[in-house]
Amino acid sequence: MTRKLSTKPLSGFMELLPEQQRSFNQIMNIIADTYESCGFIHMDQPLLERKDVLLAKAGGETEQQIYELTKGDTELALRFDHTVPLARYVADKYGDLTFPFRRYVVGKVYRGERAQAGRFREFYQCDVDIIGNEKLAVGYDAEMPIMIARVFEKLNSELQTGAYKIRINNRKLLTGLFESLEITDRSAEILALIDKKEKISNDEFIDSLNELGLPDTSSETILSFLNSSLDELPALPISGEQFEVGVSEILFVLQTAQSSGITPEVFAFDPTIVRGLDYYTGTIFETQLIQYPQFGSVCSGGRYDNLAGQYTSRALPGVGMSIGLSRLFDQLLKNDVLKTSAQKTASQALIIPMDNKISEALTIQKELLAAGISCEINWGAGKLDKRMSYGNKMGIPFIVLVGEQEADSGLYTIKNMESGIEEKLNITDIASYISN
Amino acid sequence: MTRKLSTKPLSGFMELLPEQQRSFNQIMNIIADTYESCGFIHMDQPLLERKDVLLAKAGGETEQQIYELTKGDTELALRFDHTVPLARYVADKYGDLTFPFRRYVVGKVYRGERAQAGRFREFYQCDVDIIGNEKLAVGYDAEMPIMIARVFEKLNSELQTGAYKIRINNRKLLTGLFESLEITDRSAEILALIDKKEKISNDEFIDSLNELGLPDTSSETILSFLNSSLDELPALPISGEQFEVGVSEILFVLQTAQSSGITPEVFAFDPTIVRGLDYYTGTIFETQLIQYPQFGSVCSGGRYDNLAGQYTSRALPGVGMSIGLSRLFDQLLKNDVLKTSAQKTASQALIIPMDNKISEALTIQKELLAAGISCEINWGAGKLDKRMSYGNKMGIPFIVLVGEQEADSGLYTIKNMESGIEEKLNITDIASYISN
Repeated sequence: MTRKLSTKPLSGFMELLPEQQRSFNQIMNIIADTYESCGFIHMDQPLLERKDVLLAKAGGETEQQIYELTKGDTELALRFDHTVPLARYVADKYGDLTFPFRRYVVGKVYRGERAQAGRFREFYQCDVDIIGNEKLAVGYDAEMPIMIARVFEKLNSELQTGAYKIRINNRKLLTGLFESLEITDRSAEILALIDKKEKISNDEFIDSLNELGLPDTSSETILSFLNSSLDELPALPISGEQFEVGVSEILFVLQTAQSSGITPEVFAFDPTIVRGLDYYTGTIFETQLIQYPQFGSVCSGGRYDNLAGQYTSRALPGVGMSIGLSRLFDQLLKNDVLKTSAQKTASQALIIPMDNKISEALTIQKELLAAGISCEINWGAGKLDKRMSYGNKMGIPFIVLVGEQEADSGLYTIKNMESGIEEKLNITDIASYISN
Repeated sequence: MTRKLSTKPLSGFMELLPEQQRSFNQIMNIIADTYESCGFIHMDQPLLERKDVLLAKAGGETEQQIYELTKGDTELALRFDHTVPLARYVADKYGDLTFPFRRYVVGKVYRGERAQAGRFREFYQCDVDIIGNEKLAVGYDAEMPIMIARVFEKLNSELQTGAYKIRINNRKLLTGLFESLEITDRSAEILALIDKKEKISNDEFIDSLNELGLPDTSSETILSFLNSSLDELPALPISGEQFEVGVSEILFVLQTAQSSGITPEVFAFDPTIVRGLDYYTGTIFETQLIQYPQFGSVCSGGRYDNLAGQYTSRALPGVGMSIGLSRLFDQLLKNDVLKTSAQKTASQALIIPMDNKISEALTIQKELLAAGISCEINWGAGKLDKRMSYGNKMGIPFIVLVGEQEADSGLYTIKNMESGIEEKLNITDIASYISN
């Protein structure tokens, strides 16, 4: 016997069993259908880009994680997110697009991270972005948390993923705060501190701020900002236009989201949300599944002022959000939130022709398909028991037997595989029997 | 001004405008939905594989076209078809699968071909395969042309792609012919000749056969086989089990397909169909769009005896088919078969809040979404004309105006953008008005 090749997929590359794949597809479809129903167009883009295009804005870590290759004399790389390709696309097709340009994408991206549980090197990101031409009203910021809520309402009603919380902040509040305190030269360090504030005590936080050379009054102002509710913002000892614009934007976004008809409590102001360092310029948000804090943020995004600066001198502001689908699915699966369906196929009926009654079986399939009922024919030549056992293993709810007796009488045996009940029905009644 | 990067996608990588993408998605959905309705499961697999796995069976041309890369110390490559990853998958998950294993995939594959019109380096293949465990009844062969017909019936009814023909042959007929004539040592050359027979005269064909050292009687037998109808096959001067099995299989496949309720004439026996050289072992088929012979075969496939020989010693026979979606779409687009819809989005309604009537606009959106009507809100702060013009450019059929007057009276202005007719309706009537 010759040596056989290994059959394992690459480490960090998800490959599912059929019943798991059906759960995955169900989540993916809920996300895509919700995006589409809100007027977003699914745009498909290449997975490969020229390396210089992909890395124009990327920093150190991204550059190390990238999958790069050379074909002919062109240096290429696999996309590591959907935003860079979108920026190139909008700059390229600018004259042919209608703005605001609303697009979504459900597709794979690649990052050669160190392999570890729950981290994938090939993974799905499900992104929505709205790009304006020079301007984009703040109402579009408000649309994002509403859209997130629509997705997670649906995921919860269909898959019991549970309650969720969308925490919203605005980078202008943070920028305004730093401007007011005249500490913009240390904003990166302070943002990084705010980002990990949940994990440290107030004293530790103040100590760290003092180490950056901040006077006590400034540290206290920062702390009181981070502990503020939405109503308390205007009364804080922070002045300047940037902060005021931030207050008015966050008020508008929260009020709008809370008047959308979705339980208002899912939307919360959270001044500790930071989201990266230099990309976002306004509204920012994160989403947590309340029962599964260990998942981290399952959907996040925000407002940016300049999508495509490296490709065009036009101002293209936008707002977007992204769901890390592969990671979310993996976590839901490992935490037994997803109950894999016993039905492993879309087929509602398995049609079994016997005694060579093939054209009758095909007629029944045609009738069922016309009624919108997915079904398949078992063509096996073996014993009836074995052929029915296939239907059983696949969890197909109905079996239709098509033998000589059935063909002669025009009455076909249909078996409900769950209840075991058999009925004899004529062809035209089978579809409505299965539908009910 | 700093120099800006080029925004063009890579040569040979398709990137569409939104209205084109909608047409593409429509075709893709017809294909995927038809596959799914017949009990196939959409299996998603990695786009990257280990190079040795991908190239285990590939020959010279494929090896040159492959996109390869190295990450860490692993040699990787982008998949060039869906069959090799399927073979690895079935061998890997063998114990967890129920056979016959029915899977489909709609996904991208990569071949670094020389760039030319209508040839893509990144392109969609839409594959269906049914894999048996040691055995697979010939009925599954018959299922493939029936499935192709279902797809192209639907494409024609929704997109007017026109009439099509599925030409079917069986490799056992050809093998049996060569065995009977004792010319199996030259079968590759003769198959190549048969493959181009349509382009040369009978005399040229016979001359070429004679150059391979065939006696006239053998050449004439081959020619009479190639000119035979299905009924004439048994009477040909060709003997041996292989040929007889081929005759019985092709008869069964044709008769079954023709009793499926689809116009029988779309299925035709064509002894000149060859399909590659050493992969297929039984039923083989090709599909032509009759009005567009220049497209070549738009869907082809066949029966193979041994899917995964390089990974497992188990016998895994299968039958499959593949639609080259990117190429088909590109041809349909260039030949004006696809009429790009004036509607560039799924949105049926554009809701325009005025006078700060935001919560009313969100309530209307919620009602419409609950009724299954895709819609979006225009958040723009500009003049009403400009906001309506967005809806017009996107081809959104209805605009709903939500101003002070509307909110006070509870009657909202809804404008049919095609007829120009305006109605005043209360919230609960808007959804049914749009649906009708």
